[in-house]
Amino acid sequence: MATTTVLVLDAAPPTPPPRLGSLTGRARILHTDEAGLAARLPLADVLLVWDFASDAVRRAWPGEGSRPRWVHTASAGVDHLMCPELAACDTVVTNARGVFDEPIAEYVAALVLALAKDLPRTLELQRERSWRHRESRRVAGTRACVVGSGPIGRAVARTLKALGVTTALVGRAPRPGVHGAEELDRLLARADWVVCAAPLTDDTRGMFDARRFGVMQPSAHFINIGRGPLVVEDDLVAALSKRWIAGAALDVFAHEPLPGDSPLWAAPGLLVSPHMSGDTVGWRDELGAQFIELYEAWAAGRPLRNVVDKERGYVPGH
Amino acid sequence: MATTTVLVLDAAPPTPPPRLGSLTGRARILHTDEAGLAARLPLADVLLVWDFASDAVRRAWPGEGSRPRWVHTASAGVDHLMCPELAACDTVVTNARGVFDEPIAEYVAALVLALAKDLPRTLELQRERSWRHRESRRVAGTRACVVGSGPIGRAVARTLKALGVTTALVGRAPRPGVHGAEELDRLLARADWVVCAAPLTDDTRGMFDARRFGVMQPSAHFINIGRGPLVVEDDLVAALSKRWIAGAALDVFAHEPLPGDSPLWAAPGLLVSPHMSGDTVGWRDELGAQFIELYEAWAAGRPLRNVVDKERGYVPGH
Repeated sequence: MATTTVLVLDAAPPTPPPRLGSLTGRARILHTDEAGLAARLPLADVLLVWDFASDAVRRAWPGEGSRPRWVHTASAGVDHLMCPELAACDTVVTNARGVFDEPIAEYVAALVLALAKDLPRTLELQRERSWRHRESRRVAGTRACVVGSGPIGRAVARTLKALGVTTALVGRAPRPGVHGAEELDRLLARADWVVCAAPLTDDTRGMFDARRFGVMQPSAHFINIGRGPLVVEDDLVAALSKRWIAGAALDVFAHEPLPGDSPLWAAPGLLVSPHMSGDTVGWRDELGAQFIELYEAWAAGRPLRNVVDKERGYVPGH
Repeated sequence: MATTTVLVLDAAPPTPPPRLGSLTGRARILHTDEAGLAARLPLADVLLVWDFASDAVRRAWPGEGSRPRWVHTASAGVDHLMCPELAACDTVVTNARGVFDEPIAEYVAALVLALAKDLPRTLELQRERSWRHRESRRVAGTRACVVGSGPIGRAVARTLKALGVTTALVGRAPRPGVHGAEELDRLLARADWVVCAAPLTDDTRGMFDARRFGVMQPSAHFINIGRGPLVVEDDLVAALSKRWIAGAALDVFAHEPLPGDSPLWAAPGLLVSPHMSGDTVGWRDELGAQFIELYEAWAAGRPLRNVVDKERGYVPGH
């Protein structure tokens, strides 16, 4: 039996490579950076996209000839690697579904509570050594609309419900416990918190635009932990400036890292964080362990979990 | 029947007086500020301490002669009004037990999540337009020790448990679901989050001192939403400076408003907020409505809820 070759698209230092020691003797591990990817792809049976922010796979994927039979990305979204050639071929694509759900849900809860309790202003006043009592908002009894009914959206909904928030989940198509996309505007119009946890696909790109911010309540807050291009960023800045909505928090952006001259850094009522919502201590080890687990199934010819529907751009189903 | 006189110790503007319109025709309502309190106390059957931050009652309470038969304070703590003369006489004291429980629990959850997710640093980096990804902490699976087993402490424990935090409640004496004070140090030593929700009494004053901060883990965070003097503030500043603990958040202080030159404003890893944890939109209306409800019972000769044990300094029982 020929040895399997696993090619790892490494992330730039200081990010450590994945711990693949348990594959020793069973697979040949090759490492590459973005520049070397195209030359090495034809040698690989398996590609592990460890540098999940890279779009090098999309750029380097061979239109024909030898290529990996399986691509795994250490991320929930696959938007950065999908391309027509990858979608059309018989290569299986899997993602890191499951690793980020609960951490991201906690992060969203942190944002909702911080915004309700006016924590950003409290920290500002502390810097000024200024004692200014304010009334803050209850979270229990408010309404959230969580857009994206995958495991992340569902974890967000569970956590918000545990805090007493009435939460509606919106997916592409209706199913038990999930509203279909045709109900989105109605639900946005009554939400205190709009949380975007959708995958980035051709259907969802730019879905949060001026019209949708216009539908929301002036007291509403918008939170995006999905992907940057789900939001028309200029429209969000305008909506905040005109007070169409009360505030927002973005963890993801069309261009990451966010350029220093972006108007988003200083948009009124906008909290900016550096794509960290799912990244809790130990997350890289979990991502590595998840790949090993999938590898065991793949090598044994067992069915793979987390298989992405390459046309839709996410793992379908519950 | 003689008309009942209700004396209201008003708060300074801009705080509005309580809405007591529903007592019209049944009670004579007198208003006073701190300066006029001593002269008016002998005229009153009932005293409503609306200015709950004032210690004027303690200073003005008559040692003998005519005095109110019932004092209600629009606060959970009674430390600011209790004095030996009030404790010794037959005047009934009630508090605002119940109004603040859930709001404060949400506030504590906001602090725990904000500290776990490093939100203060994120806001600092945003001001500098600096993109700096960090790993943050999971909240689920951590341990909290909530000191104070009254309704506020119990609400805090419930909310933290809903977020997956293993939570121990500590009261004066052990009872089902509550650890006794003799277990405090053992529980502090293993807690990731120490939340102080205790009443201020002779037993609890200064309970969080250098020794207790020394018992905590270097990774622990301390949160006080009880009363300022429960903490030896200099010891907390020293503990933070020496990194005995990882961080803290104080909503209450020995001197309020916190003076501009207090070292607490700039202590490393300390979040300062202006005694606002329980004050959500509508809270003053709730406090007024609660007094009316108690008044109806008192006027009808029915038993009063929220009766403070004047020796202990809080409402005992479950």
